[in-house]
Amino acid sequence: MTRLNVTQKLIESHLVSGHMTPGEEIGLSIDQTLTQDATGTLVMQEFEAMQLGRVQTELSAQYVDHNLFQEDFKNPDDHLFLHSACRKFGIWFSPAGNGVSHPVHQERFGIPGKTLVGSDSHTPAAGALGMFATGAGGLEVALAMAGKPLYLNMPRIVGVELTGKLPDWVSAKDVILEMLRRFGVKGGVGKVFEYHGPGLDALSAMDRHVIANMGTEMGATTTVFPSDGEVRRFLERQERGDDWSELLADDGANYDEYVSLDLSALEPLIALPSSPGNVKPVREVAGEEIYQAYIGSSANPGFRDFAVPAMMVEGRHVQLGVSFDVNPTSRQILENLSNESYLSRLIRAGARLHQAGCNGCIGMGQAPATGRNSLRTVPRNFPGRSGTPEDRVFLCSPETATASALTGKITDPRDLDMDYPRFQEPETMSINREMLDAPAGDSGLVELIKGPNVKSLPEFDPIPARFSGPVLLKVADDVSTDEIMPAGAEVLPLRSNIPAIAEHVFRAIDKDFSQHAKALGGDGFFIVAGRNYGQGSSREHAAIAPRYLGLRAVCAISYGRIHWQNLANFGVVPLTFANPNDLDAIEQGDELALNDIVDMLDSGSEITLHNKTRNQRYVMHHGLSTRQIDMIRHGSLINLVRVES
Amino acid sequence: MTRLNVTQKLIESHLVSGHMTPGEEIGLSIDQTLTQDATGTLVMQEFEAMQLGRVQTELSAQYVDHNLFQEDFKNPDDHLFLHSACRKFGIWFSPAGNGVSHPVHQERFGIPGKTLVGSDSHTPAAGALGMFATGAGGLEVALAMAGKPLYLNMPRIVGVELTGKLPDWVSAKDVILEMLRRFGVKGGVGKVFEYHGPGLDALSAMDRHVIANMGTEMGATTTVFPSDGEVRRFLERQERGDDWSELLADDGANYDEYVSLDLSALEPLIALPSSPGNVKPVREVAGEEIYQAYIGSSANPGFRDFAVPAMMVEGRHVQLGVSFDVNPTSRQILENLSNESYLSRLIRAGARLHQAGCNGCIGMGQAPATGRNSLRTVPRNFPGRSGTPEDRVFLCSPETATASALTGKITDPRDLDMDYPRFQEPETMSINREMLDAPAGDSGLVELIKGPNVKSLPEFDPIPARFSGPVLLKVADDVSTDEIMPAGAEVLPLRSNIPAIAEHVFRAIDKDFSQHAKALGGDGFFIVAGRNYGQGSSREHAAIAPRYLGLRAVCAISYGRIHWQNLANFGVVPLTFANPNDLDAIEQGDELALNDIVDMLDSGSEITLHNKTRNQRYVMHHGLSTRQIDMIRHGSLINLVRVES
Repeated sequence: MTRLNVTQKLIESHLVSGHMTPGEEIGLSIDQTLTQDATGTLVMQEFEAMQLGRVQTELSAQYVDHNLFQEDFKNPDDHLFLHSACRKFGIWFSPAGNGVSHPVHQERFGIPGKTLVGSDSHTPAAGALGMFATGAGGLEVALAMAGKPLYLNMPRIVGVELTGKLPDWVSAKDVILEMLRRFGVKGGVGKVFEYHGPGLDALSAMDRHVIANMGTEMGATTTVFPSDGEVRRFLERQERGDDWSELLADDGANYDEYVSLDLSALEPLIALPSSPGNVKPVREVAGEEIYQAYIGSSANPGFRDFAVPAMMVEGRHVQLGVSFDVNPTSRQILENLSNESYLSRLIRAGARLHQAGCNGCIGMGQAPATGRNSLRTVPRNFPGRSGTPEDRVFLCSPETATASALTGKITDPRDLDMDYPRFQEPETMSINREMLDAPAGDSGLVELIKGPNVKSLPEFDPIPARFSGPVLLKVADDVSTDEIMPAGAEVLPLRSNIPAIAEHVFRAIDKDFSQHAKALGGDGFFIVAGRNYGQGSSREHAAIAPRYLGLRAVCAISYGRIHWQNLANFGVVPLTFANPNDLDAIEQGDELALNDIVDMLDSGSEITLHNKTRNQRYVMHHGLSTRQIDMIRHGSLINLVRVES
Repeated sequence: MTRLNVTQKLIESHLVSGHMTPGEEIGLSIDQTLTQDATGTLVMQEFEAMQLGRVQTELSAQYVDHNLFQEDFKNPDDHLFLHSACRKFGIWFSPAGNGVSHPVHQERFGIPGKTLVGSDSHTPAAGALGMFATGAGGLEVALAMAGKPLYLNMPRIVGVELTGKLPDWVSAKDVILEMLRRFGVKGGVGKVFEYHGPGLDALSAMDRHVIANMGTEMGATTTVFPSDGEVRRFLERQERGDDWSELLADDGANYDEYVSLDLSALEPLIALPSSPGNVKPVREVAGEEIYQAYIGSSANPGFRDFAVPAMMVEGRHVQLGVSFDVNPTSRQILENLSNESYLSRLIRAGARLHQAGCNGCIGMGQAPATGRNSLRTVPRNFPGRSGTPEDRVFLCSPETATASALTGKITDPRDLDMDYPRFQEPETMSINREMLDAPAGDSGLVELIKGPNVKSLPEFDPIPARFSGPVLLKVADDVSTDEIMPAGAEVLPLRSNIPAIAEHVFRAIDKDFSQHAKALGGDGFFIVAGRNYGQGSSREHAAIAPRYLGLRAVCAISYGRIHWQNLANFGVVPLTFANPNDLDAIEQGDELALNDIVDMLDSGSEITLHNKTRNQRYVMHHGLSTRQIDMIRHGSLINLVRVES
C-alpha cells in the first residue's frame, strides 16, 4: 500500500477527477467555502444568477472584515445584501465587528480533513488545522457553493521538516520569513508546503496559521499541517473537541521535494520594502527611525500575538511620535484580551486600538506618513499597498514591531534590556458563538436586500452565429487588469454594481471608452492587444464589465492566465494570433468579423478573423476546452450552469 | 456691591474692553486654547504666518481626533505637521488614539475660572468645570494663542434652575434634549445658559459636559456651570485637586432670562431626523426597526455613558443585524472600561468597538445603510452628516440607544424588563498622562514637518490704491460657503494646502472657475452676488482660497456674518449695494474698478464702484471698522499682526 503524506490524503479523499500526478488537472469536492465582503458580493450575485437555491456544501461562511469604513451607504448596503444572501442561500453570516475571516474560521468552523475554497488569497491559513484550503476566483467559489468540484493542477508537495525549538524572541512569523528568504515570492508556485517533524510540537495551531497564511506570499497553492494533538487541544479550547480527528502522514511518506529547517537556528527577521521576499536579519537594519508599529492581521492573528506585546509594554510606554496600531483579529480574541488585562496594558502604553478587521493590512486606513518607516505584522508590503505612494513598509513579528515601538527605532527584540515574557494561555477562554448568524432552514422566500448600489449580475446573451464589430481599442503589451478595471477609493465601492463600475473600464487609457462602447447600442466590439493581456490581479470585474459594455472577442498575442479564463467564463472569445505580425495590420476602428464562430470553435483550434476595413483575413488560435466553448455558446459559465441544473 | 452670576464673574475677571451690557462688543483675555486636527492645521499655518514665536496663553492644546482614517499620506502628514508645530510653538500635543478633544481637555487641562477658546464648535463643553469656553474661527484662535483678546458681543445670560432628581433610565442627554425641545436650534443665539439650583447635585461633571456640549445645538455662545464640590471631586479623581477653586454665583444673583427645569418630570427623549431640535418622547416613535445603535462622541463621553450600557447588555446580546457601534472617547476611559470589565461585556454582547476619536459623529465612517434608522448619542443629526444621503439619524441617551440595540427596535429603556443598573464610579481610576506630549522649553530651532500636502499659508499683498478687474462670477442669493469651497472626501484632505484646495473653488457652479482665475495672471477679479452671500459653515477656506486665486472685492446685497468677517480678515473688500437694483445692471465679465479704494474706505461708508464695460457708477457701502480697514490695507489680518508686533 502506498504511504501517503497529509496533502495526498486530503486530496485523495476528495478526488472526483484526474490523477495525483503533479501538473495534471484534478477535480476536488469541496466541503466548506469562505467569502469576505470585498469579493463576496460578486460571489453572491453569481450564485443568485445561477438560480441554484441553497448552498450544497457542508458549511459556507460569509465574513464582513474588509470594507469596514462606512463613509457612505455603499459598504453598509453591501453588508445588508450579504446578510440577506446568507439567509436566502443557507450560509453562516459573520457581521462587521466579528473580525478577520481566517482566524474566525479557524476558531469556529475549521475541521481537520476537510477541503475549503475561499475568495481570499489567504484562505490557505486553514491548513493549520489539517485542511486542504485554497483561494480562488469568485465564480469558482460560487460553483463550489453549488456543489461543483474545484479544478486545479495537482501540485508538487514540498515536505518541510521542522527540527529544534524557537529561541526566545523568535516566533512563527520568523519561520515563514525564513521560508520566504529561501524561496522568494515565486518559489511556491504550483506547490504545497507540508510541515512535519519534531519542531511542530512547540508551534500552536495559531502559530501554524501564521505560517500557512503567508505561504501565499511564496505563490503556493496552499500549506498543510497535520491534525495532531495540538489541533485537538486547540479545538477543545474552542469547545469543538468533537470536530477533531487525527490526520497524520503515513510513516515513511514521500514528498516531491524536501526541505529542512532547524528552528533553534532562527533569529528575528524582517522583510524590507517592498516585497515579502526581501528578508534580512533585523539587526542588519536596526536603528532606523520608525513612524508606525502595527500588530494584528491574518498573518499574526493569535491571542499570543497580542498578549506577548502587552507583556512587553507593561509599565513602559511607546515613543511619543510612534503610531502603535493594534488591530484585533476577532471579537473573541478582543474579549479575552480585555478579560486578561492584556488590552489595558496595550492601551495604557500608548496603543491606538482599532476595530476588529483587516484594516490597514488591505489599505483601509493606517497609511503611514510620507517617507516614514512602518513596521507591520501583516503578510504583504507591496509598493503603495498601505495607501501611501513610495511607502516604506517592513514585515516582522509582533515582538520586533513592539520592541521598535518602545525604542522608536527598528530594534531586534533581543537587544531590549528585557526578559522574554513567557506567555501562558489563560486557564479559561471566553467562547462567543452568539454573534454569528447560523443558516436557518430553507428560506426561499427571503428577499435579497439591494440598496441603490447593489445590482443583480447582468444577463449575458449567447454569442450570435455571425458577429462583426469595430476594434474599439487597440492596446500594447502587458496591459494589466488594473488598467482594464481600476481599483481605488472611487471604484472599489462599485463592485456590487456592474453598470456603474463599467463606466470606469479602460479609464486610464481612454477616458471616454465606456461612452464609445455604449454608443454602439449593444452591437458589440473587439479589443486588440499585444502580449500578456490581462496580467496582474485576478479580479473578475476586468472581464465582466467590458463584457457588459459589449465586448465579444479579444485578439491578442498572449494572455495573463487567469484573465484568459475569466474571459471565457463570461462568454468573451479570447483569440490568439497564429502570426503575431498580423497584429500590426489591424488599426483601432477597423471593422472585424467572425463568421460561424461557434462552428469554428467546435471544429478545431483555428479561427478565421476577417478584417472588413482592410479586406484581410488572419488565422487565429483558441485553446478553449469543450466546456469553455459551451460557456461561450451559452453566453457565460453562469448560463451554462443554469442549463445543466 | 453687584451680585454676580458665574458667567458674569468669568467675564468680568477677563474683560479687557467693553462693558457687560448684552449686545455690546467685549474683549476677553484668553487663558487656554484648544485645537483639533481638522481645523488645527490652518490655525498653525496662520500662527506660523504671524511670525510670533511661542504661544502666549497659560495653556494651548492640540488634539488629533477628527481625521483618523489614514487612507493615504495626507492625514498622517498633517498629524506630523501638528506635532512639530506644537514643539515649535509651545503647545501640548495629544496624538491619535488619545481620544476626543473635549473630554480629554476636561480630564487633563480644564481649570475652573479660566477662559478657553477652541477651533471646534463644541468647545463650550468645558463650561462643565466652571470655565467660559467658546468656539471660534481658526484665525481668532491663532490670535488668542498669540495673546490677543477674543472679541464677542456680550451675551444675554439665561439662568436655568434645575430642581428634583432624574428618574431611573433618564440621564443628562435627556436634560439637554428637553432644553432643545423648548428652545429649538436657534433659541440660544446670543445667549449663555448658566445652570444652577439643587438639581445640580446629582449631575456629575461629565453629565454637565453632556449638557454644555450640546448647548451649541441651540446656537448658544456657551454654557456655564458653577465650580462646586462635584467639580472638586472630579478634579481630585483626575489627580488635579490643586487645579480646583470654587466659583459660585453670588446669593441673589440675577439673570437676563429665567428658566426652570424639574428633572424628576423628565422622560427618555429622542431627536428625530434630521434636526437636534426635533425632540419627542421615545415612546412616541418606539417600535421602528433600527440598523444601528451608536454610543460615544463628545456629547456622551463619560465613563458612565459606556458603563451603564455595559451593565444593560451583560448576559444578553444585541439583535443580529444591528450594528452596535461603541466609540470610546478617551484613552483613559477606554483603559478604565477594560480594567473594570465593562469593555468585555460590551464586546461579548456584540459591540463593534472603534478607535478612540470623533469617528462617525463627524461623518468619518459608520454611515448607516440606505433608508435605515440609526440611533446615536452624538450631538448632531443634520441631513447627510452621517455620510448617507437622506439618512435617518436619531439622537438619544446611551440608555435609549442600548435598549434599542437589544430589541432591534426604537425602545424606551423603561419598557425593557430590566432593573435600572445603578452605576457606581470605580474606587480607583487609572490616570494616563504619558501619552500627551508636553511643550518643551523654547525650541525656535524645531523645523515644521511639512509633507508634500502641507504648505505654508500664501503671502497676501496689500491692496493696490487703484484696482480694476473682471466680474469672474455672478451668483444668485444664498450661495453658501459649501458652494464656494466644497467639503467632501476629495477636498477635505487638502485643507493644509491652499494652492491645491483652491482648484476646487466654486467647482459646483463653474468647474473651470479656478482656471479662469489663474488665466488672469494674478491681476485679480471681482465676485458679484445677491443676498446672504457666504451663508453656512464658518470655514475660512471659503475666503482664503478665492483670495489666493486673486479675489479682491465682493459686491453683494448682503452677507453671511462670519464669511463677511473672514473676507475682511484675508484682505478682500466686502461691499454692499446701496441700491440693490444695481445688481441687475452688472453682468458676469464686466470690467469693474475701485479707484483710491483705501482712501474711500477711510473717509466714510460710501464707495464708488465703476463699471467700465457699461460706463456706470454704483454707490456701495462697507461696514468695516477702522481695524478691518487696516487689515485690508495691509493685505490681511495676519500681515497687520506682523506689523504690530
